[in-house]
Parts: sequence; C-alpha cells; structure tokens
Amino acid sequence: MAYNIFFLNCSLKTSDETSNTQALIDKVWSLYEERGATCTCERLADYLVHPGVTADAGEGDEWPGILEQIKRCDVFVLATPIWMGVRGSLAQLAIERLDGSASNTNALGQPPFINKVAGCIVTGNEDGAHAAAGTTLYNLTHLGFSVPALADCYWVGPAGPGPSYIEARGDKHLYTNRTARYLVHSTLHLASLLADQPYTYDINALDQEAKSVSAT
Amino acid sequence: MAYNIFFLNCSLKTSDETSNTQALIDKVWSLYEERGATCTCERLADYLVHPGVTADAGEGDEWPGILEQIKRCDVFVLATPIWMGVRGSLAQLAIERLDGSASNTNALGQPPFINKVAGCIVTGNEDGAHAAAGTTLYNLTHLGFSVPALADCYWVGPAGPGPSYIEARGDKHLYTNRTARYLVHSTLHLASLLADQPYTYDINALDQEAKSVSAT
Amino acid sequence: MAYNIFFLNCSLKTSDETSNTQALIDKVWSLYEERGATCTCERLADYLVHPGVTADAGEGDEWPGILEQIKRCDVFVLATPIWMGVRGSLAQLAIERLDGSASNTNALGQPPFINKVAGCIVTGNEDGAHAAAGTTLYNLTHLGFSVPALADCYWVGPAGPGPSYIEARGDKHLYTNRTARYLVHSTLHLASLLADQPYTYDINALDQEAKSVSAT
Amino acid sequence: MAYNIFFLNCSLKTSDETSNTQALIDKVWSLYEERGATCTCERLADYLVHPGVTADAGEGDEWPGILEQIKRCDVFVLATPIWMGVRGSLAQLAIERLDGSASNTNALGQPPFINKVAGCIVTGNEDGAHAAAGTTLYNLTHLGFSVPALADCYWVGPAGPGPSYIEARGDKHLYTNRTARYLVHSTLHLASLLADQPYTYDINALDQEAKSVSAT
Repeated sequence: MAYNIFFLNCSLKTSDETSNTQALIDKVWSLYEERGATCTCERLADYLVHPGVTADAGEGDEWPGILEQIKRCDVFVLATPIWMGVRGSLAQLAIERLDGSASNTNALGQPPFINKVAGCIVTGNEDGAHAAAGTTLYNLTHLGFSVPALADCYWVGPAGPGPSYIEARGDKHLYTNRTARYLVHSTLHLASLLADQPYTYDINALDQEAKSVSAT
Repeated sequence: MAYNIFFLNCSLKTSDETSNTQALIDKVWSLYEERGATCTCERLADYLVHPGVTADAGEGDEWPGILEQIKRCDVFVLATPIWMGVRGSLAQLAIERLDGSASNTNALGQPPFINKVAGCIVTGNEDGAHAAAGTTLYNLTHLGFSVPALADCYWVGPAGPGPSYIEARGDKHLYTNRTARYLVHSTLHLASLLADQPYTYDINALDQEAKSVSAT
Repeated sequence: MAYNIFFLNCSLKTSDETSNTQALIDKVWSLYEERGATCTCERLADYLVHPGVTADAGEGDEWPGILEQIKRCDVFVLATPIWMGVRGSLAQLAIERLDGSASNTNALGQPPFINKVAGCIVTGNEDGAHAAAGTTLYNLTHLGFSVPALADCYWVGPAGPGPSYIEARGDKHLYTNRTARYLVHSTLHLASLLADQPYTYDINALDQEAKSVSAT
Repeated sequence: MAYNIFFLNCSLKTSDETSNTQALIDKVWSLYEERGATCTCERLADYLVHPGVTADAGEGDEWPGILEQIKRCDVFVLATPIWMGVRGSLAQLAIERLDGSASNTNALGQPPFINKVAGCIVTGNEDGAHAAAGTTLYNLTHLGFSVPALADCYWVGPAGPGPSYIEARGDKHLYTNRTARYLVHSTLHLASLLADQPYTYDINALDQEAKSVSAT
C-alpha cells in the first residue's frame, strides 16, 4: 500500500523565499519516497488562513483546502521553525484551526484525525526544538493522531544567533540525518498498523459510561 | 492476551501518605482490569533512587528494580503531580534514569523500550497538566515508546491554590472520567498492534546510511 | 509621574466579538487607573499584521502602529488566551514581530525595550496559564523588558472544556483578583525604579570584551 | 555596597565529579567579583535534600542550610543542566522546596524572597535552554524574585548528542560570553534599585480588597 504523507510547512515565509524548514522537509520527503510513499506539501504562509478555532472561517478563508489534505493523508508531518524558543505562530495557527476542525466526529464519536499518524520536523538556528516538537506532537494526540517512537527530526545550531540549516550545512549533520530516517520508518510502520486495525472503541459509549459515574 | 500495565506514581509523598495522583491511578487501574489487563504500580518516593543518567547508579540504588518492571510491561503509565506548572521532580528523575537506561539497545539497535506503549496521568490543584503530560509523552517517544491518540488523563482545579483531586471530588469530574477511558482503550489498542507487529526496522543500518551522507 | 500602560490583547477575535481576555484586561485596567496610570489597549486581531521577524513588513502591514505604542509605554502587558495548552497564535505573532523590532538598539547597544516593564494576563477555559505566561515573560526579558515579582494574572477553569472567564464569573475568582492587584503594584513599582535609574551599562563595550575572550 | 550572589548548582553530579554547569558558573562568578560582588555557591547534589514542598522536611534534611543562603543573598542564580529538553530534576527539587518555603511571609504579607533578584544559568549538550531558563525565571517571580532584562546565560551545542560545555570549549563561545556579562550587569543593577527602594505594597491589604470583590 502506498501511504500518503502530507507535510505542512509552517515557515513564516511564502514560497518565493527560501525556507530552511523546507530544505529539511525535502530531505525527509525523499526518504519517504524511497519507501514507496506519496508525498505532498503545502506552505501555510502561501494561504490566507484566518485566526480562530473553526473548521471554516468563512469568505476568503483558505484553511478548508489545507484541512482536506490533512483528512486525506495517512501521515501528517507538521514542520515548523523555532521563534523565541517555541514553535512559530503559523504552527500555532495550524493547531488552533485543527482544534476547531476536531468536533466533527465519526459515528463512534472519534475525532476526524483518528487512525492518522503524526510526525514533526523542526528547524531553528538554535535552541527550542524539544519545546516545538513536544508541544506539537502532544497537541496532535489530543486531536486523534497517534505518535510512534522516534517521531521527530530537528536541526538546531549552538546557543545564540547563527546560520540556519541550509547555510550551516545541516544536511550533513549526523543526528538530523539519523532521526530523519527514524521518523520515516516509524511513522510508516504505525500507519500500516492503523490501516489494518483502526481504533474501534466507541467514544460515544465511553462518554455515556463516564457521565453515569460523574457529577451531574 | 493479558497486557501488563505498569504505573509509576511520581508523587513526592511515600506510601504512608495519601496521594491524589494515586487516587486517579486507582481509577484508571480498575478500568484496565475491566479490560482484562494486569496492573502493577510503584510509588517512586518509596525507593532510594540516585540522581544521574545511568541504568544502575551502584550501591543502594533502587532504580534497577523499577527499571525491570518497566522492561516487563506492555503499557507504561507515568503518573505525576504538578509542581509550579510542570511535572514534579520525581517524574523528572524517572525520565533521567530512563534516559540513562536507553543505550542498552537490541540487535537492531532499537532502544530497550521499543514496542512499548506510553500513557500519562497528571493531577494538580491547578494549571500545568498540558506541560507535564506533553513533556513526558514526548520524552518517552525519544526512548522508544509509542503514544496512541488520547493517551493522557488529568485533573486540575481552577486557577490558584485550592483543594486537590480527592478533596475536590475529582472522581466525579466528567472530563477526567472520559479521558481515563480513552487512555485505557487507546493504550491497549496500540499495545495489541505492537505485540502482533513490532517495529522491525534496523536502526544500525539506518545509522550507517546516515553516516554515509553526513560530514565526518 | 503618570505611567503609561499598554495592553496588547492577543485574542483571536476582533473587537466586534466579546473577548474573555478583554474582560480581565478591563479589570486590571481599572486597577491601574486607581493608581494614577494611563492605560491604552489594542486588539491585535483588529489589525493586519504580517507574519515575519521584521519591524516593518512593508505595504499594508499595520505592526508599525502597534510597535509605536509599545515604544511609548512604561509597562507592556501582553494578554493572551490559551489554545491547546499554550499562548495563542497572535501572541506568538506579536513576540515574533517584537523580536524583529529589537535589533534597533540605542547608543549603548541596548535593545529598544530596555527600561520598560513587562506583565502578562492569561485566560483560558482550562490549563496552560503557566506555559503561556512563563514563555511570554521570559521572551520579553530577552527583548529588554524587566519582570517584577508577581507579574502575571490569569484565570483558568478546571480540567477540560467548560465556560470561559466571563460566563464562569471569573470576575469573582479570588486568586485572579488577588494577582490582578499584585501585577499592578509590582509593575508600577519597577517602572518607577527604572524611570529614575535606567540600565546604564554599555552593551557595545561588553560585546567587545566578550569578543576578546572568545574564539574568532 | 557589595552585593551577595548565591549560585545554586543543580547539576546531577556531586562535587567530586566535574560539572559543566559549574564551569559556566565559575566564569560568571569571576565577572561578578570584578564588579565587587561577593559570591558563594553550593552544589545541591552534595546535600541530602528530601523531596516535598516544605521549608524543613525534618531529620536529616539539609535544605534548611541551603535556604538560609538564599535568604541572605541579593541575587540568586539558579544553574541547571538540561535533561531531556528541560531543567534537571535537582533544579525542579530546588523550586519545589523554595515553593514550600514561600508561605513564611513578612509583615506586609510579602513572600520571603521579595526584593531579591533572580538570574539563571543553563548548560546542555544540546537543545532545551529556553525551556529550562524560562520555566525557572517565571517560577521565581511567583516566589517573589524580580527578573531584570537579559537575566540568563546558557550554552548548548547543536542538535543531538555531543560534547558538553567544557569539552566543546564553550568558554570560547561568543554568545555565551556576551550573555554572561549581561546577566551580571542586569542583576546587579536591579539589586541596587531594590536595595534602595524595596517593594512596599501591602499584600495583606490587597488580599482583603480582593476578597471584598470576590465570591465567598
């Protein structure tokens, strides 16, 4: 089976500018393709995405087009730069819009992203990758995504201002190249498991059970 | 198959004192047992665990006994109180000791906790559950654990000092009771998938491949 | 002396919608006015603020108008809702734009926000205030702001979805009302100290000294 | 006036082992001494400090001796290694014990650490300095400490495992050497301001006022 990988590049820059985050995405992309997966990628900054916590913010809002691609994928890889030690504002925006899109549950009451796998890519010229990836992957589990072992790949340079991924030749950085491979193999493995055996538990029934033991 | 669940209660209190975190563990425990799982639990404060990042810190160190139980389980649920907005010091200690225990890889170069599933329980009288659970679950993926959708259950009260889980009748709190159920069902589902089909990719081979494309 | 307080409301909603964060701002505002301070407030969502890390992102970008108000104030209070356990995307956007505005140093090499005081207001229907306020206040110290004791005021409800500040009668919540007062008194005290005795150390000279002991 | 600086080294290692965090403390120490300040330092791992949130945990607990030194200092610099992307367990332990020591307020209801200044030093072989310093400095403001502009100094290397501060010649890293100087000058300036003009507002009175507007 050919799995669909969707990368969302949350760089602050539009596609007419070079994105360090994109450079690392491209590397991971080629590793996915080697494994037979089909990749697509969107740069969030290229779209007009309204702030808010709804699935569709109305006229002019281009989030619904992004959302469709997330709904179609098997593996969702959110990629973000670090700004001031945490994930960038467009990554936060994407998470907020995803949160607004999660109430549309299936017949079992499961969130729409159940049975999808999440991964994370982070680049920054220094410090903040754990915060960015950790917050993001955890948020995604709340939206129904599953996170395999070794599900993130990042590059950061040493303390303080300095060159970013491309200029610093991050493409030659061993740790990043190792974890790029783990990310690909781990997410594909978990995607195959969930394709064969999705979560089948009934959230509606569990909610009823929880109500019966809780205060009214 | 009867899965083994291991709870590590990282309360700052020893077992002769009432632990709010334990009260929530007990609730989740009974839900696991209803599903046929076998549960065990240790209170970290009951043991002499040396600080450091080794698997065995030598004479008097009781971490190796805890580690054995983690190695035997299918689902590892780290449970922690919140202190000052983040996980408690004993949860951090457990993560540090786990990190020190992760270099002992298998024949494929995989970390010793690969194919195990992680969940998280958090209690606090107020704010900090996302930080505590997010950091913990993310750390555990770096150690080889997999995290399913909806893998944490927490209780916190409103802003500022106030009663804790037991006194506040957190056992009647709907959201906590709902997520307790999701945690149990999600972790058991993922445990069954990984029991049938473990991660088989060869980290040693991937590391070699990464070396060949990286700077020397 | 009448200090100038500038609130930046980073709600995701524009001014034609009710903002819970604004309701708490209004409370703090009146406490500042009781102490003789002059308050102004902008809702970031009302403006077209481009993503990026520059002081002025060119045509149509309305950040420069916000920035002017921050430059004129003595106390800057960033107010943000919580989304998915952390500060909202517009708060992150404001911090990124402030970061892009910090390179414009004074004659001593100090950042433009030196001698200004920072405070933080956070509202959310549950968990995440420590993460939102902590990240924000820390970021602001990197941009030159000083943070007094007890510099944040927040309201959150108990775990899980639920009513927000206004509906939940957060205006009657003791902890929030106490910390609102501490925030006002602390920031005004520190503002008066820095008005009398600004930071006078020469960053340019220190940078030279650092260069002389560092690798070339 | 000669200010008293107290460094608390929260390395996981006792003093018979080399601490990278200590190496950076020593650098900052000498910069403080050049400015006429008096420095003392303790390694927390050298002491038997019980977990918990009390000022004195009873027989054998050596926290009270550390606490005395914090009470005597003008500037408290908490120094911590990074483990798994956040501050180490002993830093968390110190913050928990400080929290347990903060209820002993003065006649105005102010916490015992009011009018003291906080700074932070972080070392790690990679990523996590913002998380470690941000959480720590923010926690300290809740305990009464004030945080000046540019109050932290850290060293981290690039992504992934690698040499630590000493081996990597972090003593030659420009950014770290610059921020070491800012930390010293900023904390001393704020210490001098607070020595001359301490916070004088009456927390007891503000608490009464808050009670009168809050729900009973």
